[in-house]
Amino acid sequence: MSNTEVKNEEVTQKPIIIGIAGGTGSGKSTFTNRLKDKFGDHVTVLYHDNYYRAQDDLSFEERKKMNYDHPSAFETDLLIEHLRELKNGHTIQCPIYDYSNHNRSNEVTIVKPSRIILLEGILVLADERLRKMMDIRIFVDADADERILRRVQRDVKERGRDIENIIDQYLTTVKPMHYLYVEPTKMYADFVTNSGMNDVALDLVATKIQSLLDGGQVAERHNTNEQEQYFSEASKSLKY
Amino acid sequence: MSNTEVKNEEVTQKPIIIGIAGGTGSGKSTFTNRLKDKFGDHVTVLYHDNYYRAQDDLSFEERKKMNYDHPSAFETDLLIEHLRELKNGHTIQCPIYDYSNHNRSNEVTIVKPSRIILLEGILVLADERLRKMMDIRIFVDADADERILRRVQRDVKERGRDIENIIDQYLTTVKPMHYLYVEPTKMYADFVTNSGMNDVALDLVATKIQSLLDGGQVAERHNTNEQEQYFSEASKSLKY
Repeated sequence: MSNTEVKNEEVTQKPIIIGIAGGTGSGKSTFTNRLKDKFGDHVTVLYHDNYYRAQDDLSFEERKKMNYDHPSAFETDLLIEHLRELKNGHTIQCPIYDYSNHNRSNEVTIVKPSRIILLEGILVLADERLRKMMDIRIFVDADADERILRRVQRDVKERGRDIENIIDQYLTTVKPMHYLYVEPTKMYADFVTNSGMNDVALDLVATKIQSLLDGGQVAERHNTNEQEQYFSEASKSLKY
Repeated sequence: MSNTEVKNEEVTQKPIIIGIAGGTGSGKSTFTNRLKDKFGDHVTVLYHDNYYRAQDDLSFEERKKMNYDHPSAFETDLLIEHLRELKNGHTIQCPIYDYSNHNRSNEVTIVKPSRIILLEGILVLADERLRKMMDIRIFVDADADERILRRVQRDVKERGRDIENIIDQYLTTVKPMHYLYVEPTKMYADFVTNSGMNDVALDLVATKIQSLLDGGQVAERHNTNEQEQYFSEASKSLKY
């Protein structure tokens, strides 16, 4: 049986969307990649980062200075459209972001629907529409000092960036945006884990994914997230 | 097949210990009870509270003034002994605490070994020996204001206590002990959830328990909890 045939069978069931959020250097990509490695083609990963806005109208210098840690840096509408397409069993053309050029590239990745969709990014829990599409919401947490150390290591080693430049960007945009927009979304998570390397947390999610692939059901979200309910009710019913 | 026979089959496999910690009013008992309700006799619950020390040498007035939120208020050695007995397939005589008398009662509960043991209490993650016995470590978290509101409701309604007395005890012992001893153990948890009512978090743990009852394995803890490793190494190798 070919992979394509497996997929077509799988998508007769509604895909399950698992959101994986967390600050820079938190370990969310490690967590996501370890899940992907376990399940291969049964799992599709979408990265919010690939939906950074196309900014062809800006010069390179202008694009360089943009705040990439603010929710409005992402074209979340397109991501939502793509998630709906995948949920309906359609293939999507996922944009590819070109970090060196600070702009969306002209290339796309063809992403086929699958039973499990992992949606990864610092701000995937910040958009109410995305949250509502998620069956499971995960936040990978780590202390701020360990997160920045990992970011420094990555940016120096993999991206050849200057330490002064990394520190400046961290203090002027990454850190304030984290506390304004990323950290508050932790309360929307069904569970928070302390590292992308936590085997026990990974196994809990992997066991659930395996049970879904074996025909199991996802939990209905009744009284989940009491706080979110209160906040939502308050914002609807209270006058300002 | 009788229940006893089912149990004897089950305990040929090593029992799995799941620790469920969290502050007062966090929802940890709700989370624990919902798991227990799902699995009945397949799951045994041990409450750290039942291991509050016997204090026959103290007067009622002295017992009343004790700090019941400090780790030393518990006879954790006995709990560990009992967990070892259960792990070895033996029945234990679990003490019963008499809250109205602030002392251990003369009665015990006979607890039979089972495949899954839930260990619940504010400080179950505070003892390294307990942590090492746990296969899964959960911390149920909630904001301090919501926790104290739940505690007030419970103590007024169920225990008929005076509001001034509740506030005094909360501010003088419960709160400081929480920040000194309970809150820091959150970092040891594999899985922090925001409410005892979170259906998705509950379902993740329930799916794992079901897979264990069906013959599945628990994850080996390799690089789990990096922080704990660092702290443990530091305390061994550094001179003070």
